[in-house]
Amino acid sequence: MTRPSAPSARSKVRRVRELARYDRSSINAILDEATVCHVGFVDDGQPFVIPTAIARIDDHAYIHGSRVSRMLQLLVAGNPACITVTLLDGIVVARSAFNSSMNYRSVVILGSGEKVIGEDKKIVLDAFTEHLIPGRTADIRASRPKELAATTVVRFSLDEASVKISEGPPSDEKSDYESDAWAGVIPLRLKSGKPQPDPRLKSSIPVPTYISKRKT
Amino acid sequence: MTRPSAPSARSKVRRVRELARYDRSSINAILDEATVCHVGFVDDGQPFVIPTAIARIDDHAYIHGSRVSRMLQLLVAGNPACITVTLLDGIVVARSAFNSSMNYRSVVILGSGEKVIGEDKKIVLDAFTEHLIPGRTADIRASRPKELAATTVVRFSLDEASVKISEGPPSDEKSDYESDAWAGVIPLRLKSGKPQPDPRLKSSIPVPTYISKRKT
Repeated sequence: MTRPSAPSARSKVRRVRELARYDRSSINAILDEATVCHVGFVDDGQPFVIPTAIARIDDHAYIHGSRVSRMLQLLVAGNPACITVTLLDGIVVARSAFNSSMNYRSVVILGSGEKVIGEDKKIVLDAFTEHLIPGRTADIRASRPKELAATTVVRFSLDEASVKISEGPPSDEKSDYESDAWAGVIPLRLKSGKPQPDPRLKSSIPVPTYISKRKT
Repeated sequence: MTRPSAPSARSKVRRVRELARYDRSSINAILDEATVCHVGFVDDGQPFVIPTAIARIDDHAYIHGSRVSRMLQLLVAGNPACITVTLLDGIVVARSAFNSSMNYRSVVILGSGEKVIGEDKKIVLDAFTEHLIPGRTADIRASRPKELAATTVVRFSLDEASVKISEGPPSDEKSDYESDAWAGVIPLRLKSGKPQPDPRLKSSIPVPTYISKRKT
């Protein structure tokens, strides 16, 4: 679903507003390319920011982890949270330090978590596996009831999500274009290396196509 | 300076404590490899998590940005913050979804910011440039007083920093080692691509060695 959505007062991007977007297709594209997010929550007045895996299904972003995690316990209790995803695209090398910056695409989701229970939990955990490695779930056993019970899954609505995208070449002061310093962009990208077999892997098992051909 | 340091009650790692470290050399190595951090702060009870560049000098981590940034204004006012750096090293492909995970190195810094003023500001801003592109400062003009005035620099002590490192092959349930599913690690790494010259670059300026040979 693509729709232009109006930001709430608190989800409205404050700095450099011309880089902001609020439409669902921009949000989804960034979340679907992400491997991890950073989760912000408050415990006794102190903010904490913890990295964890993220997956999206329809209009929600999901995180998961151990049932005994302090973070997840605070989130399922309804405490306010912020989920941020950042894809780093490049270093913007301007002709001055002041105008140098980064190219990136980020999503900031505000809201409170909602605990996922019952059959939905299985669906979401499979989505995490498929998000990171499409084709993997068909190759492994199903999660066991004990494993499902040990895992907490929390979802966040994308209603209060905002996108910020910084792209393109540097923008320099007029007088700096006379500079003899090189200027441009150094692209950055998270890339996969050669799969490293577990030392305990049976020697007859080759790297499956869904791993060797995995897009990164 | 390398020293084993004891964590404070709130900076002690909660989950999977055997992955935790608190020594300064582990902290420094991760911060010095990082391009961005995620800054957590609280505004009217709502946590926010915002990505920004990070640089380290000695016993402090530094962030910077526009003087009018809400985040920086809250931080220089002494509000509690959390600065998190995450280096993603791989996808751990276990024989079950439950034991699959990520390899990563992360630093979580708790504390309050301290505004950097005077001559120190120049030194820190140069450190940001050199952190991302060693050799760059010699090639560009110095920051102007107006630019320095428009920039806020904030530093955080590393006294309440903790490290978490997850590495190595999957750890599976005993019975799962009989599985015929492939298992291992897909390494991940942030890599630089070919530098893209600014369309407005004078054609006589080649890519300098400090950029073409930049380590990533």
